Amino acid sequence: MPKYVFTYFNGKGLGEPSRLLLAFGGEGFEDHRVAEKDWPKYQPKTPFGQMPMLEFDGKTYAQSLSIARYLGKKYGLAGDSLEDALEIDQNVDLINDLRSKGAIAHYEEDEAVKKTKYAEFNKNDFPNLLKNLNDIITKNNGHIALGKLTWGDFVFAGMFDYIKNLLVVPDLEKKYPAFQKVVDNVYSIPKVKAYADAVGPTEF
Amino acid sequence: MPKYVFTYFNGKGLGEPSRLLLAFGGEGFEDHRVAEKDWPKYQPKTPFGQMPMLEFDGKTYAQSLSIARYLGKKYGLAGDSLEDALEIDQNVDLINDLRSKGAIAHYEEDEAVKKTKYAEFNKNDFPNLLKNLNDIITKNNGHIALGKLTWGDFVFAGMFDYIKNLLVVPDLEKKYPAFQKVVDNVYSIPKVKAYADAVGPTEF
Ligand SMILES: N[C@@H](CCC(=O)N[C@@H](CS)C(=O)NCC(=O)O)C(=O)O
Ligand SMILES: N[C@@H](CCC(=O)N[C@@H](CS)C(=O)NCC(=O)O)C(=O)O
Repeated sequence: MPKYVFTYFNGKGLGEPSRLLLAFGGEGFEDHRVAEKDWPKYQPKTPFGQMPMLEFDGKTYAQSLSIARYLGKKYGLAGDSLEDALEIDQNVDLINDLRSKGAIAHYEEDEAVKKTKYAEFNKNDFPNLLKNLNDIITKNNGHIALGKLTWGDFVFAGMFDYIKNLLVVPDLEKKYPAFQKVVDNVYSIPKVKAYADAVGPTEF
Repeated sequence: MPKYVFTYFNGKGLGEPSRLLLAFGGEGFEDHRVAEKDWPKYQPKTPFGQMPMLEFDGKTYAQSLSIARYLGKKYGLAGDSLEDALEIDQNVDLINDLRSKGAIAHYEEDEAVKKTKYAEFNKNDFPNLLKNLNDIITKNNGHIALGKLTWGDFVFAGMFDYIKNLLVVPDLEKKYPAFQKVVDNVYSIPKVKAYADAVGPTEF
């Protein structure tokens, strides 16, 4: 039995950062994917009623970013000091601010409200968040923090397709050219590439 | 000059957890409060365009939870192992899920949409999130994690008034009696109490 069991929907979403970190760590993990149609039956058996989840040593943990941070520390991707860790955490929280704004608009069920939200966020929120993030990555040489590979890069790379799908900003990669660098930096790591090639294309 | 400068609006909001942690740490800090009316003038001078911010050793950091986590580690409130830190982070993220749901409804400007949001969240989201949190605190003896005082307690205690104001759930404290214990546990720490008494009542 592998040391870790990681459970999430089949898509990338909030789960892919931790999957990429687990692949990088190379300790072996069960990549447990729950089909949308099975979730209602499966949910009551989960301790938190939400995914992703990471199980090891007889315990189950939830919360995508907490799990990614844990794996990042385990695999030497969390800097060398408390201040390093703070810089990574801070920039990951900025990615999360962007994701959660996008999610508010994307998951809105009332079509009229959804349109208003996208209009508002495209005017007031997305441009600032995207520019700040692009500046940070540029300053850090294609990385999220510390000018080198950290677990923050895995968060960004793993969620990039999902975030693009939430935001629907045309020509995102052209306008913010630093983004693709983080993605390429992570996916060119041999163990990460081997994992991604084996899984093949999935939903965001 | 004090070692730390902490900058936020005058209310508790996202800033109070770190203020309480700084008070607990006892190293001295400048409690810099920006009036709402001065923010438009002040904002362009800030590195991130948002508060809270923590300045020390010539650097400025943003992101409320990242700052609180940093101070928690500094002041011995982050557990003894990577798994301890994961448990705290996980439960803090649950508090944050609750806060951000509440914020979506509270800050909605369209009154009709706001009403719909509150109705939906009161049905589908708040009860589960509140129950999960109350169960966690009960299991942890009046604490957010590890059955003892951690920086997670400071996050909850510092944001409790703000969260109550966002959710507007009647009789919240009666329905979820564990919540007040965390607040009391934190505010009865002499250095925290001295800080809170000196500041006096503020907005949430
Ligand atoms: N803050 C949590 C949010 C988790 C979350 O929203 N999970 C969704 C999937 S992306 C879920 O489990 N939804 C199914 C449900 O709530 O029934 C995290 O980052 O892990
Ligand atoms: N994710 C950030 C959010 C910060 C945030 O939303 N700050 C608000 C105050 S609570 C702010 O600065 N608003 C003023 C503005 O954006 O102009 C954090 O947790 O620190």
